[in-house]
Amino acid sequence: MATISDIGVSAGINILSAFVFLVVFAVLRVQPWNDRVYFPKWYLKGLRTSPIESGTLVGKFVNLDFRSYLKFLNWMPEALRMPEPELIDHAGLDSAVYLRIYLLGLKIFVPIAVLAFSILVPVNWTNNTLEKTDLTFSDLDKLSISNIPLGSPRFWTHLVMAYAFTFWTCYVLKREYATVASMRLHFLASEHRRPDQFTVLVKNVPPDPDESVGELVEHFFLVNHPDHYLTQQVVYNANKFSSLVAEKRKCQNWLDYYQIKYSRNPSTKPTTKTGFLGICGERVDAIDHYTSEIARISGEREKVVSNRDAIMPAAFVSFKTRWAAATCAQTQQSRNPTQWLTEWAPEPRDVYWDNLAIPYVSLAIRRLVIGVAFFFLTFFFMIPILFVQSLANIEGIEKAVPFLKPIIEMKVIKSVIQGFLPGLALKLFLIFLPSILMIMSKFEGFISLSTLERRSATRYYIFQFINVFLGSIITGTAFQQLDNFIHQSATEIPKTVGVSIPMKATFFITYIMVDGWAGVAGEILRLKPLVIYHLKNWFLVKTEKDREEAMDPGTIGFNTGEPQIQLYFLLGLVYAVVSPILLPFIILFFALAFVVYRHQIINVYNQEYESGAAFWPDVHGRIVGALVVSQLLLMGLMSTKEAAQSTPLLITLPVLTLWFHRFCKGRYEPAFVKYPLQEAMRKDTLERAKEPNLNLKSFLHSAYVHPAFKEADNEGDDSDEDLVSTKRHQSKHSSKHSFSSLPEDPERSLL
Amino acid sequence: MATISDIGVSAGINILSAFVFLVVFAVLRVQPWNDRVYFPKWYLKGLRTSPIESGTLVGKFVNLDFRSYLKFLNWMPEALRMPEPELIDHAGLDSAVYLRIYLLGLKIFVPIAVLAFSILVPVNWTNNTLEKTDLTFSDLDKLSISNIPLGSPRFWTHLVMAYAFTFWTCYVLKREYATVASMRLHFLASEHRRPDQFTVLVKNVPPDPDESVGELVEHFFLVNHPDHYLTQQVVYNANKFSSLVAEKRKCQNWLDYYQIKYSRNPSTKPTTKTGFLGICGERVDAIDHYTSEIARISGEREKVVSNRDAIMPAAFVSFKTRWAAATCAQTQQSRNPTQWLTEWAPEPRDVYWDNLAIPYVSLAIRRLVIGVAFFFLTFFFMIPILFVQSLANIEGIEKAVPFLKPIIEMKVIKSVIQGFLPGLALKLFLIFLPSILMIMSKFEGFISLSTLERRSATRYYIFQFINVFLGSIITGTAFQQLDNFIHQSATEIPKTVGVSIPMKATFFITYIMVDGWAGVAGEILRLKPLVIYHLKNWFLVKTEKDREEAMDPGTIGFNTGEPQIQLYFLLGLVYAVVSPILLPFIILFFALAFVVYRHQIINVYNQEYESGAAFWPDVHGRIVGALVVSQLLLMGLMSTKEAAQSTPLLITLPVLTLWFHRFCKGRYEPAFVKYPLQEAMRKDTLERAKEPNLNLKSFLHSAYVHPAFKEADNEGDDSDEDLVSTKRHQSKHSSKHSFSSLPEDPERSLL
Repeated sequence: MATISDIGVSAGINILSAFVFLVVFAVLRVQPWNDRVYFPKWYLKGLRTSPIESGTLVGKFVNLDFRSYLKFLNWMPEALRMPEPELIDHAGLDSAVYLRIYLLGLKIFVPIAVLAFSILVPVNWTNNTLEKTDLTFSDLDKLSISNIPLGSPRFWTHLVMAYAFTFWTCYVLKREYATVASMRLHFLASEHRRPDQFTVLVKNVPPDPDESVGELVEHFFLVNHPDHYLTQQVVYNANKFSSLVAEKRKCQNWLDYYQIKYSRNPSTKPTTKTGFLGICGERVDAIDHYTSEIARISGEREKVVSNRDAIMPAAFVSFKTRWAAATCAQTQQSRNPTQWLTEWAPEPRDVYWDNLAIPYVSLAIRRLVIGVAFFFLTFFFMIPILFVQSLANIEGIEKAVPFLKPIIEMKVIKSVIQGFLPGLALKLFLIFLPSILMIMSKFEGFISLSTLERRSATRYYIFQFINVFLGSIITGTAFQQLDNFIHQSATEIPKTVGVSIPMKATFFITYIMVDGWAGVAGEILRLKPLVIYHLKNWFLVKTEKDREEAMDPGTIGFNTGEPQIQLYFLLGLVYAVVSPILLPFIILFFALAFVVYRHQIINVYNQEYESGAAFWPDVHGRIVGALVVSQLLLMGLMSTKEAAQSTPLLITLPVLTLWFHRFCKGRYEPAFVKYPLQEAMRKDTLERAKEPNLNLKSFLHSAYVHPAFKEADNEGDDSDEDLVSTKRHQSKHSSKHSFSSLPEDPERSLL
Repeated sequence: MATISDIGVSAGINILSAFVFLVVFAVLRVQPWNDRVYFPKWYLKGLRTSPIESGTLVGKFVNLDFRSYLKFLNWMPEALRMPEPELIDHAGLDSAVYLRIYLLGLKIFVPIAVLAFSILVPVNWTNNTLEKTDLTFSDLDKLSISNIPLGSPRFWTHLVMAYAFTFWTCYVLKREYATVASMRLHFLASEHRRPDQFTVLVKNVPPDPDESVGELVEHFFLVNHPDHYLTQQVVYNANKFSSLVAEKRKCQNWLDYYQIKYSRNPSTKPTTKTGFLGICGERVDAIDHYTSEIARISGEREKVVSNRDAIMPAAFVSFKTRWAAATCAQTQQSRNPTQWLTEWAPEPRDVYWDNLAIPYVSLAIRRLVIGVAFFFLTFFFMIPILFVQSLANIEGIEKAVPFLKPIIEMKVIKSVIQGFLPGLALKLFLIFLPSILMIMSKFEGFISLSTLERRSATRYYIFQFINVFLGSIITGTAFQQLDNFIHQSATEIPKTVGVSIPMKATFFITYIMVDGWAGVAGEILRLKPLVIYHLKNWFLVKTEKDREEAMDPGTIGFNTGEPQIQLYFLLGLVYAVVSPILLPFIILFFALAFVVYRHQIINVYNQEYESGAAFWPDVHGRIVGALVVSQLLLMGLMSTKEAAQSTPLLITLPVLTLWFHRFCKGRYEPAFVKYPLQEAMRKDTLERAKEPNLNLKSFLHSAYVHPAFKEADNEGDDSDEDLVSTKRHQSKHSSKHSFSSLPEDPERSLL
């Protein structure tokens, strides 16, 4: 057990390293040649141009203005300054509400910490139970529930505190749910006209021998929504087409490059080789070669488009009014509930095109398969890793590649391999875990990126709960735990876990500092995108467009970020009554993360889609889940402390909490799932009054065209009518209306 | 343990008693004076008139046609003869589908029994494990799994059989779900115009200081459904009004009685006394007295109706088309999801008026309260009963009423009290249990009788599962079981229960014979309604209307009947692999019950409402639940038999079964919850073509008036325009269209 001074030293080290990160960040961010790494959001919005193009030669790469180094923590107040409505305009509602999760953490834990330190800590401290025992203990343990003697009436304090914390958490949660729900409704209501407001996705169109899918859809909706149907857009299976488009794009890029080269130096005609990577093969005139290549690909493309097999039994159906779309999305169309399934069309950027045509039965089977696979992934992932570890030792390598033996036998390399290899498999697995979970979600057949991320987040949280939280408290692999739990009674499980909780406080404090504090500080440094950008910039960038593409703003990463926050909620709620000493560390994490992520959202991240904070019910649900877990574990712990009279009082807590959850679900969740007709009607009426001659059909005409087709169109004809203002447009007259039209940029998904 | 001959004797006795019941029934039903007890359905339909009014004096009361006694089992083929479509016309879809549950039992268990007896029984029988042990055993046990030695490879047979039974059950269930779903859709589609097709119930209308509820509703729907809104009917709190109506009705009845009396004997004016029951008080002229009473009540009624506080914040809103109603019922109206809640209006007869105005928060709290109350009812009901039993003994009574001591001390009475009293409290509780559950459901706030019955059925099944099924297998009260289960591990529980299952086969066989066979045979006798009818007929009946009301056709009683059937499904599925000997008894029950209930539905029961088989998802879900329980218990049993290799194979069974359940839920349940727009549109179009000048508003005008008001109207003005054909109408020209218009009889609920 660590003493308070141990923890203090550790905290000092971690604060120092976080501070170093921040200083390095402060230096790097003011260098002009890093500008595109630390401010990509503004480039994408067309509000910032490269500082390299202006200024002196040195000034292009190194910031010589020393005043800017002095104000190195300036970004913090800057990040906090932008008011929330402007932030929503700037980065979308998703990002703004995501930040509210950190704020929620502060709102919940600051009052709880104050209460705990003013009441619980004195109650715990003024005992001498631990001093009487032979156990080694530290001052830290004296602050925790371990210091209360068995059966002491002092446990009543903990009981009352458990109630107080529960009620406070529920109160904050309910208020926050109400706020976010009204923010979402307000956001949807104040939004400009968007294609998805008028559009419904129809899946599982039944096959018909006489009509094409497009005709069938048109007829069906003309019959069943005669007054409201406007137009439809059939979904194509564009995988082959996409690859052709990508190929053409590459050729076009090379063509541009050679043309520029040729225009600068008209004396030598540039040549290239037709073989692999332009290294081998016949030498030909580069411009001619790529021009003919582009023509060939265009021809192939025509063939793919006219292929009828590429049409999938799904369509985007648009209506004349928002009211009609809201109506159609919420009702059942056909008497067979597995056909003509309608749901809100996701935003065009948000659509995950590959999954639009999965039949109903296949979906059901995929769900079963993934459910079973996730179970095994969670509980048995250690087995293949242990297997790899058993292979990846010195002897194994020497056996597999005997000629490396002399090198491996060298002392330095040998020790590196021995120290490094066993952990490598596990580390690699954990790095790839979010991607694995994302692939699982994709296989499961969700149709929008936002749903994919939400589902992956849920799975990642479950994985962390079992393997990080429970795995750290009870040692042993997840499978061993599962085996234990199955063979234990329902009352034993909370006891087993609950008893170990106070002992693990130190471990989790360290975890919070390393994973939380340092992780957040590392996030702001953006080491990986920094390196990759410069590498790309040096080796690959040929045209200005390439440079733009080398910029990797990234996204919030809901599927990895949110489960991490949730883990801290869980730790905070579990330890609030047991060892309140954990709370300040968690509060510091939430505060730091809030500032850092606010900065990143303003300057860096570029959200791929806008779901209108559709993830909040998940966030809310998981915090309630953490609350119930904390109550059950407290019950288990208390029952081992011979405070049996507390059990009936403690058992009502989870009952009340679950009831609270159901109540909130009924009260607020519909705002995230349905679209009230009253709102739709209000917007329709307003719009009709404002723009009586609006041509909605042309507005919706190409909204839900597969991005590959759209891109192809854009390339072929750049003067294409831009129904939705695109980025290219914006940068031309960005000063005028760049803020207002930002969330509607559909071309963003193509970058 | 009982031997086969014991069981045979017991079966003989039970078959004999059932046979006696049937003979008594055959005799009683052909007596003219019982006609209204055994054929009330036909009276209510106006297709049968009292045989007492015709024939000779003796022939009026005793059937003298001896041929009719000989054909005493004739009712059986008669009951089976009516084809299903005609049955649906005659008794409604609910009744027809209810019968299909018995048929489903036969479909599932007959093939399972054949398979079990041809494969499992020989495998079990050809062992001599039991003979080797010291245990006493019977031939019956030799047929069960107990006769297989530990760890024998013969358990593979049971494993394969478990798979076969599961697949067969699921196959039959899926086919049946599909059939019932299409029957429901067909029924809804082929139905005549009904008010509920056009009507939506709006609850939680927010209060408005400036407008009345009616105006508010009208404005809201005129704004949000401008093209479709037709009319609305505000809901009144008519409890006070109802009692006034009932009072008036009583007076009217007395008035009729005295008027008839006076017209027969004009010489003496009939008189009555104003006091209690007409026995004491001032003697007045009866006709004058009741006429003035009726006038007084009418005056009071006016006051109640004009009282604005009686208007509740709920309304029935009707639309111009079925399409619009279907749309409105399935969508969210307001941005606050707790206001303007819309759902399908139940059939007018089906509405439970008292619950229409419960606010959202109150509903949530009621659900919590009832949830907790039901938990305590299920697990702790024995405590008050034990308390009552401890009071209700000889000493207790002597103490309470000392003057009865000499009587109680008499030997005969004493033994009766001692034998009878202890069981009385439990018996009374079990008799009143369905009523208690129904009161709980009513308190919970469901708005239609059909939902009330469905919810009560669910609770009753859970109660029976825990207290009858588990309670019989593991002795001890439900609370002791709960306590055991909490302190046992998840793997122990199925073992504990599973091990006891083979030993309880005899008990359950007896249970099936007594509760099932004799119970069904008793049902056809209708002893209680028979006695009550004759008592009423002798003592209370004054007018022809009274006689009509003395008839108590009763209903199927879904809330008590269905849980009983489900218990048999559970027993059948659990014992199919373990002791197949149980199956023939269950099959006999299903067959007998099918015939009996078919007869009762044709001749006796008068369904109060028509929900269109909305209960089928519950039925399906409970059978799937029973299947999963049977699989888990088999797993527990097998693991004690040292057939450990079977566990992984057995654990996939519940996983697959639950997946099957989810699949069916997605595939078929929407047919019972939603109303497809395609169907609605088709019916609308057809109707518009057929009756272009239909005045829908007048059709809907009084459809959703509270029955108390309606009754009042009817009484005041018998020539009221009968928008929906009423019974009185029917009996006038019943020969013409009585069949087709039957399910629409709204006045039935008033009887």
